[in-house]
Amino acid sequence: MSINTKEFYSVLASKMEASAIREILKLVQNPEVISLAGGMPDPKTFPVEDIRKITQKVLSKKSAQALQYSSTEGLPELRKCILENLAKDGNDGELENIIISSGSQQGLDLVGKVFLSPGDIAIVELPSYLAALNAFYSYGGELVGIPMDEDGMRMDILEEELIRLKNEGKKVKFIYTISNFQNPAGATMSLARRKKIIEIAHKFNVFIIEDNPYEKLRFEGEPIPSIYSLEENGSVISLGTFSKILCPGLRLAWILGNEEIIGKIAILKQATDLCTSVLNQLIASDYCKLGKLEENIESNVQIYKRKRDVMLNALEKYFPKEVSWTKPQGGFFVVATLPEYIDTKEMLKEAIEENVAYVPGGPFFADRKGQNTMRLSFCFPSEEDIEEGVKRIGNLIKKKIRN
Amino acid sequence: MSINTKEFYSVLASKMEASAIREILKLVQNPEVISLAGGMPDPKTFPVEDIRKITQKVLSKKSAQALQYSSTEGLPELRKCILENLAKDGNDGELENIIISSGSQQGLDLVGKVFLSPGDIAIVELPSYLAALNAFYSYGGELVGIPMDEDGMRMDILEEELIRLKNEGKKVKFIYTISNFQNPAGATMSLARRKKIIEIAHKFNVFIIEDNPYEKLRFEGEPIPSIYSLEENGSVISLGTFSKILCPGLRLAWILGNEEIIGKIAILKQATDLCTSVLNQLIASDYCKLGKLEENIESNVQIYKRKRDVMLNALEKYFPKEVSWTKPQGGFFVVATLPEYIDTKEMLKEAIEENVAYVPGGPFFADRKGQNTMRLSFCFPSEEDIEEGVKRIGNLIKKKIRN
Repeated sequence: MSINTKEFYSVLASKMEASAIREILKLVQNPEVISLAGGMPDPKTFPVEDIRKITQKVLSKKSAQALQYSSTEGLPELRKCILENLAKDGNDGELENIIISSGSQQGLDLVGKVFLSPGDIAIVELPSYLAALNAFYSYGGELVGIPMDEDGMRMDILEEELIRLKNEGKKVKFIYTISNFQNPAGATMSLARRKKIIEIAHKFNVFIIEDNPYEKLRFEGEPIPSIYSLEENGSVISLGTFSKILCPGLRLAWILGNEEIIGKIAILKQATDLCTSVLNQLIASDYCKLGKLEENIESNVQIYKRKRDVMLNALEKYFPKEVSWTKPQGGFFVVATLPEYIDTKEMLKEAIEENVAYVPGGPFFADRKGQNTMRLSFCFPSEEDIEEGVKRIGNLIKKKIRN
Repeated sequence: MSINTKEFYSVLASKMEASAIREILKLVQNPEVISLAGGMPDPKTFPVEDIRKITQKVLSKKSAQALQYSSTEGLPELRKCILENLAKDGNDGELENIIISSGSQQGLDLVGKVFLSPGDIAIVELPSYLAALNAFYSYGGELVGIPMDEDGMRMDILEEELIRLKNEGKKVKFIYTISNFQNPAGATMSLARRKKIIEIAHKFNVFIIEDNPYEKLRFEGEPIPSIYSLEENGSVISLGTFSKILCPGLRLAWILGNEEIIGKIAILKQATDLCTSVLNQLIASDYCKLGKLEENIESNVQIYKRKRDVMLNALEKYFPKEVSWTKPQGGFFVVATLPEYIDTKEMLKEAIEENVAYVPGGPFFADRKGQNTMRLSFCFPSEEDIEEGVKRIGNLIKKKIRN
């Protein structure tokens, strides 16, 4: 006897499929392949020596605590450190407003779980972060996409869509935005639009989920106050993470917001993983106390800025004039838009034959468009590899351009 | 304007409430209070020095890997170590059969997510692990409880219930059992019943979820083959964890089973937390390679056996004859059953005034009974505290006994 596993899956699990692109990229184990696909930070940015010393100290002096269970909400000392850092930019909160999550992805999962019943609407940017879309899909959320321009989500279209959804009797739970150096588009929402999105959220009585992993990785221009800091009614939930400013391997992030929502999220997290690794929380907490976080971020910004410049220069040099791309002021990513007749998912196989990889843009689009776009990451590869990788992709595109 | 957060919660989130008992126990910060409530391992059992040395080495030699993102399934080297250890007890599997989870609680959450749609049935023991019940509730699962005796779940009643549920047209997805030194009841399922539960699962076409955190903590008697090792059709999913044999602070556990189910769980985990901490996985993997795991477990067994003995002796000495309790051959817990007119949840407040805490048994019972039971943990408190704690609870109970 063998089992038909499919008949056992929950309705929502049945709908979750392995990403075909992920499966292709998984096969890229060949070290000859230059990958502009992944969103991994450059390991050169990890303050390894400090982390090593801190970890040593934690395991010498606080081992009984570090290796034990702890509270679901996260260590108060870590939450306080984060709150102090956030307050410097006007993001205020008390202990009750913040919960530690096991990476921002768990934050997105818990946001999906606390807000979305099957059929509920989540508004997202076009394009938006693939794994956020998946987290929302996994609770049966229906995603409505709003186009962006260089100033972020288009507020005129957002309002039109909210009116349409209201007239159709649909329940919109939240608007999800990556306000700074968006993944994948690279755009940053302007101050005017941040004020506008708050006005719209209040008018239509919806939450805003502000996902903000890249805020500190600004290469130029003035920082813009977060949507969270600009709003006063408790209808913004802000997600932040150590993955891009310290390292992802600790799996540490936070959710900041309305005390009641955070309390409910704590109840859900309790059933999800009991608590986040205490050892890792103590490492991050002691690292924050060391007072080197800002300094480390500053030097990382220089590394990523140079890489961004190398990529933008290479794009100018090697991509044909029929292709356009975003010019991010920070973060990890560029999105290139090819002529509509080029399907970047199809082209990926050829790219891998040419020893280069990127992420086809389609899956980032909740409206299933964007088949002619690609995400190019400048975070992980070396400057030489960025140049060579863009060159290889450029050559491939040139062969496909119709005259 | 203020927000009515309740109208934003998903249907399932609305139903998840903070445990009143947890809230009471949270207040117990007074170091005078002897807690027999929590299920935390004794920190004396953590191999701190080995973990410290290994961590140092990992952060010296593999920092770029340790602090980076990694695969959702978990590090192959850790999965191989676990598989080798499991194979010693006849629990066979290949890499495709195992996925690392962020603690067993995440395993339970993912089991809930992969199997349960609202209204689907999960069969559980009466009583059963509270946080497993919560994980299943959080996906809308309906729980049907089967009574236990000293040989574990009652197979005659299980079969009756499955017939009843089938006749009612209900979809049963799985039977959840903690086969060794059950939490909270302490009972171990006999070999005959392990064979029988497999026969029943095959007959009614349901999965078995075998949660096995305490298997290695056996104080006496012969080990019994796991249900997983006895079954051959791939309809047993087995959960194991490092929390009770190494330490909980790393948040490392695993799910072993049917390749298709594990593959689907990987897709879900991807949207849940991307990956489990690589640093922690490398620590556990290198600890396994050190070859000291079995030795460490053996010395831990001696620690817990002594504590169990102290608790059983104290129960004999201080609890009135109207109370009965389980005599576990391993694990962390004893369940005491008081006369039906004593509500242990009510009594908890008085206990805390007497500087002692336990967990009222009610919430462990999916049928909402067991109000007259309590879970007593001998894992964390010192031997002196166990004796004194049992004495205080015994005195309290004696005052409530009706003559």
